[in-house]
Amino acid sequence: MSPRERERGKERERRDLGQQVEGRRAVRELLVAGTRRVHEVLLTGDNDELEALASAARARVRKVPPDQLTRRARTEAPQGVVAFAAPIEAADFDSLLDAPNAFLVAVDGVTDPQNLGAVMRTAETTGATGIVLARHRAVGITPAVTKAAAGAVEYLPVSFVSGIAGALERATRAKVWSVGLDAAGETSVFDLPVADQPLVVVLGAEGHGLSRLVRARCDVVASIPMHGHIASLNVSAAAAIACAEIARRRRD
Amino acid sequence: MSPRERERGKERERRDLGQQVEGRRAVRELLVAGTRRVHEVLLTGDNDELEALASAARARVRKVPPDQLTRRARTEAPQGVVAFAAPIEAADFDSLLDAPNAFLVAVDGVTDPQNLGAVMRTAETTGATGIVLARHRAVGITPAVTKAAAGAVEYLPVSFVSGIAGALERATRAKVWSVGLDAAGETSVFDLPVADQPLVVVLGAEGHGLSRLVRARCDVVASIPMHGHIASLNVSAAAAIACAEIARRRRD
Repeated sequence: MSPRERERGKERERRDLGQQVEGRRAVRELLVAGTRRVHEVLLTGDNDELEALASAARARVRKVPPDQLTRRARTEAPQGVVAFAAPIEAADFDSLLDAPNAFLVAVDGVTDPQNLGAVMRTAETTGATGIVLARHRAVGITPAVTKAAAGAVEYLPVSFVSGIAGALERATRAKVWSVGLDAAGETSVFDLPVADQPLVVVLGAEGHGLSRLVRARCDVVASIPMHGHIASLNVSAAAAIACAEIARRRRD
Repeated sequence: MSPRERERGKERERRDLGQQVEGRRAVRELLVAGTRRVHEVLLTGDNDELEALASAARARVRKVPPDQLTRRARTEAPQGVVAFAAPIEAADFDSLLDAPNAFLVAVDGVTDPQNLGAVMRTAETTGATGIVLARHRAVGITPAVTKAAAGAVEYLPVSFVSGIAGALERATRAKVWSVGLDAAGETSVFDLPVADQPLVVVLGAEGHGLSRLVRARCDVVASIPMHGHIASLNVSAAAAIACAEIARRRRD
């Protein structure tokens, strides 16, 4: 691939809004959710459930040979299914802030699509009310993201902002707490004073943590207690622990 | 690749015991831990920290062109570093059961190396005292596993058993509770009655959950409360939430 082709590929990825969905679980949720138009579903073999769901969603189903699916697929393991759909509709950030008992997850520069998808999946299952992505620092909603999200993109409102630091200022004005997650955080995530109040959890980039400006804008910087020798958790594991703890505190 | 070559590759993976380590973080921990002999570290460029650590560990450092590193690497993104080391030494399962306040994680058929590595990383950071793998059902400790584990294989005792169900019988005899984790579990993981007692957390395979026999052997089958539309968490996210909750309860 030439540098120019690679740059173009990256540009396309940043513009991705979930139009291409791969993997059985993610395509199943796309069809079940019915929140956006599904144009076509490519399958390499019979799949009664997906065919029935596609028919109910009025999506065209096409059986294709495996090598054709592989050519169209953009993830390594599409599991015999690729779907093409209307882009997901971005949510308005201010509306997300105004929702009663907002529980948002803001992502400050996570660049691995697996991690971003895993964070979305966890956020959705723990009852988060939206995810906030920086338009230029995060990956777009690529096929690898939708696959790892396992359907979460169909339900979890996604909002794009020009920067996370600015978004946190808006959160403060809307009386929503900003809780940064960082290995150097001085508060344990299990002692969060604001867990059951409107908040946005801020995740830093893999290996770097929160940027300085973002950290300065957080009302609390929380860490997950470490009990072993290695110093840090993967960002998606850290997000899972923090989001599950916030969910637990909100139901208590 | 011919079917025979593929079979041979799989056989090799099952026999892998962490001899090949890739990625900066995993190689750094391999060198820092000093728990096993490191034969050689291949680097594509200068890396003062890794070179100093390798020298302290008396490991040979060799600078190689990127294409040569790529040929030797077995993961997609070795980050310019591949190390070759003595295999990790398997821990004795009965000794793990006898450890005071045992906190073990047993893996019943997780086949994705990323997931297995992520589970090991989380287990180590949450203070687990060992991980238990079924010799024939799990992947071995491949380069993809050591990379995702980010160094956890150097510290977390790993024990191989012939089957998880049999291992749980031995746990019962040793007065160690078996806590299965399954979406259909009747107890919330946040209400675990035995969290602060000797226990083994049992994780099922991706997408399938616990096998019938393993579930029958568990003293408690716990689930993580789901608050969204999609039905399940990734096995590594579920493990992170369960292990962090057990760690929290043990420190309370």
